[in-house]
Amino acid sequence: MSECRYSIGIDVGGTNTQIGLVDAGGRIQAKLTVPTRGHSDVPAFVDAVADSVASLVAKAGGISEVAGIGIGIPCANAATGCVEAATDLPWPSPIPIADMMAKATGLKVKISNDANAAAMGEYRYGAMRGTDNFIMLTLGTGVGAGVLCDGHLLSGSRGFAGELGHVRVRGAEDKMCSCGRKGCLQTVASAKGVVATALELMAASDRPSSLHKVPAESLTPALICRHADDGDPLALEVFEITGKVLGWACAEFAAFTDPDAIVLFGGIARASAHMLPALRRALEEKTLHLYKNRIQILTSRLPESDVAILGAASLPL
Amino acid sequence: MSECRYSIGIDVGGTNTQIGLVDAGGRIQAKLTVPTRGHSDVPAFVDAVADSVASLVAKAGGISEVAGIGIGIPCANAATGCVEAATDLPWPSPIPIADMMAKATGLKVKISNDANAAAMGEYRYGAMRGTDNFIMLTLGTGVGAGVLCDGHLLSGSRGFAGELGHVRVRGAEDKMCSCGRKGCLQTVASAKGVVATALELMAASDRPSSLHKVPAESLTPALICRHADDGDPLALEVFEITGKVLGWACAEFAAFTDPDAIVLFGGIARASAHMLPALRRALEEKTLHLYKNRIQILTSRLPESDVAILGAASLPL
Repeated sequence: MSECRYSIGIDVGGTNTQIGLVDAGGRIQAKLTVPTRGHSDVPAFVDAVADSVASLVAKAGGISEVAGIGIGIPCANAATGCVEAATDLPWPSPIPIADMMAKATGLKVKISNDANAAAMGEYRYGAMRGTDNFIMLTLGTGVGAGVLCDGHLLSGSRGFAGELGHVRVRGAEDKMCSCGRKGCLQTVASAKGVVATALELMAASDRPSSLHKVPAESLTPALICRHADDGDPLALEVFEITGKVLGWACAEFAAFTDPDAIVLFGGIARASAHMLPALRRALEEKTLHLYKNRIQILTSRLPESDVAILGAASLPL
Repeated sequence: MSECRYSIGIDVGGTNTQIGLVDAGGRIQAKLTVPTRGHSDVPAFVDAVADSVASLVAKAGGISEVAGIGIGIPCANAATGCVEAATDLPWPSPIPIADMMAKATGLKVKISNDANAAAMGEYRYGAMRGTDNFIMLTLGTGVGAGVLCDGHLLSGSRGFAGELGHVRVRGAEDKMCSCGRKGCLQTVASAKGVVATALELMAASDRPSSLHKVPAESLTPALICRHADDGDPLALEVFEITGKVLGWACAEFAAFTDPDAIVLFGGIARASAHMLPALRRALEEKTLHLYKNRIQILTSRLPESDVAILGAASLPL
């Protein structure tokens, strides 16, 4: 571990990019936000982020106090420092983001995909401290994962380990994914997937639901969750289905890394109260005997945006 | 690495147990075989193996020349040294095999499941030397796997990582597995699975095949492979189907560890000439864009029985 008192964590999301100054104890001392979209090109985006980095470096007391920058970004190749084949960013790939950011800031830069960074945040500062075997599923615009096995974050040949949102799962067989394939977990457990499940249920069932009063384009997981909180049976069924498909997926994922826990994180995880019973039931019903009654399912204990920043900040250390 | 000149590798198979004396260069200097079945109980089996170990220790020049024993055995919990919930062994689980063998021989003992040991053998002495990201699939009585990611053999919370034979895969949905679940890769890519595919094709198709002359109970993957070698179209189709299902499975497995290679090993892998074209086609057709044209598929270059012994022998080092 570096002697520097700080490190900088950057979380590049589809909409916003957050830049945080993190101290050695894992506290975010300052946080700035830059929109991810709306820049003319990648260099313009990098410049905007570098400006925020510079102001955080000043706050830290100068560049000698900062160990480096970690960036959580989709489709990161940790080995090369490039973003490769990203479908959720507004720029064409590959993007040599680590080099560009290093030149713009004078700091050492490491990158990792956002889900892997989130898993590291949970491992260093969250519910998974001391748990060497777990899978963190990030359920948001897309579905990502960070996989810790034997205390090691799986990276893989080109940094693309743990793309569990794009594993074909039971219960999603006929659903088209944005990746061009059918049946990926992401088709059910992402924001779009949750809304699609709601629309399918509304089309297929005559049961009364307050969701029928909402224009389709206004349906979001957060809104469906609020209706579920109010006891709307159709909204509740949406998250039961999401939970069930997640449970079936986790039942298979277990066979890869024999995890002690699976942690849910991201926007959809906010509805976990409505998902977890069905998830746990489906997991226990379908998993191999070796993994039965062994896997804890829980939600992240760290504030959602902080996890990604903390995880990213841990990368250069 | 120990200064000892030798280590002993033990491969416990469903039928036979092989015990090998391995030198520091990875050469098997002597090999003995004990039947796995036919002993009155586990202590009797351990005694029989310990007798063989003693004779190999004598050949090595005494116990000070031997670093220890590694045992490759199904359902091994590497962390506890116990065999847990094994379905392919003639004894009830758990079996504290590491402790028992250590007491019987006076040597340090490490255990790992046979597929993991085989992967280590391939990594240290075989086609995967220097390849830090690969999956080794052992296709035999059952289907196992050893997964190396970032140069690390995945073990998991209780040593049950990489049970890829029991992942539900496309193309096996309705097939009942010996584990009590449906759709496991093992239902298609094991010896039983290959024979079942042959019987299904023979039932469903009118096409002439020399396999129709073989009594059903005499059908084995080796025999079907010989008919395929002779150009029998139905026998060829059996391995095309096996290859296709394996390819679909590998297409999903890729998303876990982003491997450079997948290595086939075991009895069924002997038919790889008939399987590989369909396997590669299915993999490339179905895998996520990130993994396309990136994954080598090959068969083990080490003699089949030696891989398991070499891998086991590497465990105590």
